Amino acid sequence: MNMPQGFRYGAVYAGIRKVPKDDLCLIVSDMPASAASVFTKNRVVAAPVDVARSNLRVSRGRVRAILVNAGNANCATRTGEAVALTSVRETAKALEIEAHEVLPASTGVIGVELDPCKIVSALPGLKDSLRASAFPEVSRAIMTTDTVAKTAFAELKGFSIAGMTKGSGMIQPNMATTLGFVMTDARVTPAELRPILKRAISRTYNRISVDGDTSTNDMVCVLANGVSGVKPSLKAFEGALTQVLESLAQQIARDGEGARKLVTIDVEGAPTEGAAEKIARSIANSPLVKTAIAGSDPNWGRVICAAGYSGVAFDPRKVDIDMQGMAVCRGGLAADFSEADLTKKLDAKECSIRFTIRGRGKGKARFWTCDFTEDYIKINGSYRT
Amino acid sequence: MNMPQGFRYGAVYAGIRKVPKDDLCLIVSDMPASAASVFTKNRVVAAPVDVARSNLRVSRGRVRAILVNAGNANCATRTGEAVALTSVRETAKALEIEAHEVLPASTGVIGVELDPCKIVSALPGLKDSLRASAFPEVSRAIMTTDTVAKTAFAELKGFSIAGMTKGSGMIQPNMATTLGFVMTDARVTPAELRPILKRAISRTYNRISVDGDTSTNDMVCVLANGVSGVKPSLKAFEGALTQVLESLAQQIARDGEGARKLVTIDVEGAPTEGAAEKIARSIANSPLVKTAIAGSDPNWGRVICAAGYSGVAFDPRKVDIDMQGMAVCRGGLAADFSEADLTKKLDAKECSIRFTIRGRGKGKARFWTCDFTEDYIKINGSYRT
Repeated sequence: MNMPQGFRYGAVYAGIRKVPKDDLCLIVSDMPASAASVFTKNRVVAAPVDVARSNLRVSRGRVRAILVNAGNANCATRTGEAVALTSVRETAKALEIEAHEVLPASTGVIGVELDPCKIVSALPGLKDSLRASAFPEVSRAIMTTDTVAKTAFAELKGFSIAGMTKGSGMIQPNMATTLGFVMTDARVTPAELRPILKRAISRTYNRISVDGDTSTNDMVCVLANGVSGVKPSLKAFEGALTQVLESLAQQIARDGEGARKLVTIDVEGAPTEGAAEKIARSIANSPLVKTAIAGSDPNWGRVICAAGYSGVAFDPRKVDIDMQGMAVCRGGLAADFSEADLTKKLDAKECSIRFTIRGRGKGKARFWTCDFTEDYIKINGSYRT
Repeated sequence: MNMPQGFRYGAVYAGIRKVPKDDLCLIVSDMPASAASVFTKNRVVAAPVDVARSNLRVSRGRVRAILVNAGNANCATRTGEAVALTSVRETAKALEIEAHEVLPASTGVIGVELDPCKIVSALPGLKDSLRASAFPEVSRAIMTTDTVAKTAFAELKGFSIAGMTKGSGMIQPNMATTLGFVMTDARVTPAELRPILKRAISRTYNRISVDGDTSTNDMVCVLANGVSGVKPSLKAFEGALTQVLESLAQQIARDGEGARKLVTIDVEGAPTEGAAEKIARSIANSPLVKTAIAGSDPNWGRVICAAGYSGVAFDPRKVDIDMQGMAVCRGGLAADFSEADLTKKLDAKECSIRFTIRGRGKGKARFWTCDFTEDYIKINGSYRT
């Protein structure tokens, strides 16, 4: 697997986390890269998100570097904006580029002041650590409650795509910030990149229990530096980017806090794709469905109930439900299935729920979530203290 | 405390639950009572809800009895409607009243056929068990995962109100069906009762994490039989009914599955009451806020974050947050407070969160929820099997 050309990566421990684990990292493109990004929709927005959005605008989507810290969200603090601006300015100086060519991103606790000196004094070491091969180090440095680093790759004719992400919030990610960074050496303009990213996100990151209910710091960003010289077919590029983002999003769902199982939910026969997504999201967010999956309990009543309060109108007598490929509900009624067999099948690491409305509806959607275990509570009851 | 006159109560074990605990009960009014009820808004509706709604219409809100079973929701089954109709008809025969004067209600597992013979053969014993003093027995017989029976009373000049409820769903009640039955011997017409109940519910049962996201079987019903002969001031009656419903709703939140703490959330300064309620609901439903409360963690960042994705527009720099009466956030920033002191205060059985938007907004709302513990998962991971 070839990595995208013309990118370097670096990570160091700057003392922001309490534990001595890399917490400050840089992704640098040797050439100005076309950039597109999606940000949190929360009303409460962290300073780095504001600065990144502004820099993208000022630079007209031409970016050289992303500076990420973990351990502190730089949000809801007195000095948030100043810290983000200082970090960006000093990074630009060190790299001899413009300040608006640097996008900042942060993840961690909110409401605690972030000391900019920690970042500034770590910059020389961070710059020295930049290497084309340090992609894995950065993918680990951005982790918070994640249990595994999350990366995905694609290679097409003459160019490649490499993505990394973090995030393991469960029901709705709230503060378990989602960050995603995708690098490619394809030649794509910022104007081409923006709608492609938006569509790809809508079917990947917005199809895990991660979306409108976002943290204060969420951000997924794509850099395309064109170093390969290859101008791809936009359709092929969009397909490959979507695959990379889908893999990353799935890995987030699979690594949900305390999760033991990845749950894939397919809804078919809804009036529209939006309606299918609503039903799927309602099932995916139901704590009762998720605890049933954790307990390998084929409780399809909870599935149809969650669909029932999704806000989408449907006739319950036209609903078929399958779990792990076994019919559990036909026409809104219990199907004839062996509960013992299905319980055993639900012990698997991957579970599927298929919800079909009989009739002519063409709307379908796929959604990912995870099961809901005691460990989620343990992790979140003591995250801050 | 005087109980409302002219009501009798009875409960027996009909073999619907697996464990030998009363599971079938009757509330009977000696005179036709004015009745009003609110029902689930779920698209998937249990047969007893359909039958109760229809009987209320046919009887024009004049009702003699409520028949309740626990252990089976009589929902999403082949015979649901027939079972509900048979139960109602046979109950009416036994009591020598009209079938449309009986309202059925069910709670329990869905998708499992309910054997009507169990109900029919238990009716003679149930009728024999009817006594004015058996209100507590019925309040216990309707429990499912509830850990305590939930009742509330009010006495005014010449008449009284007695209510019972069940329900202990947590995040959103989904299938943890909410049932509530309130009896009064005041003289109120059905036309007077309906809008009073609707308003009272909107500020009580709809202000716990229980509402639009309802189970298939939810129902709260008021019977006013006029036996006291007292025609109360409607304002005083509404006030007393609201107090009873507020107490019942609070008890549901306090008895949330696995819960150890009752959390009261007050929002003030929002543009409208509806906006205040939206913010309060978003905070109340946030698993991250609820796990923080479970861990006595004064993590106000999660509170402002949850408010931020409520869909209500506000300026984070104008937000003040108090927990247990202590200032934790002022103008969107950390207040100067002792984390150790507040952590100790959050160990209490009752926790308060106050969210204030500075300015001229007059919208305020109070909301109740509970903390979120490992036990919730344990209860729901193995409810069915």
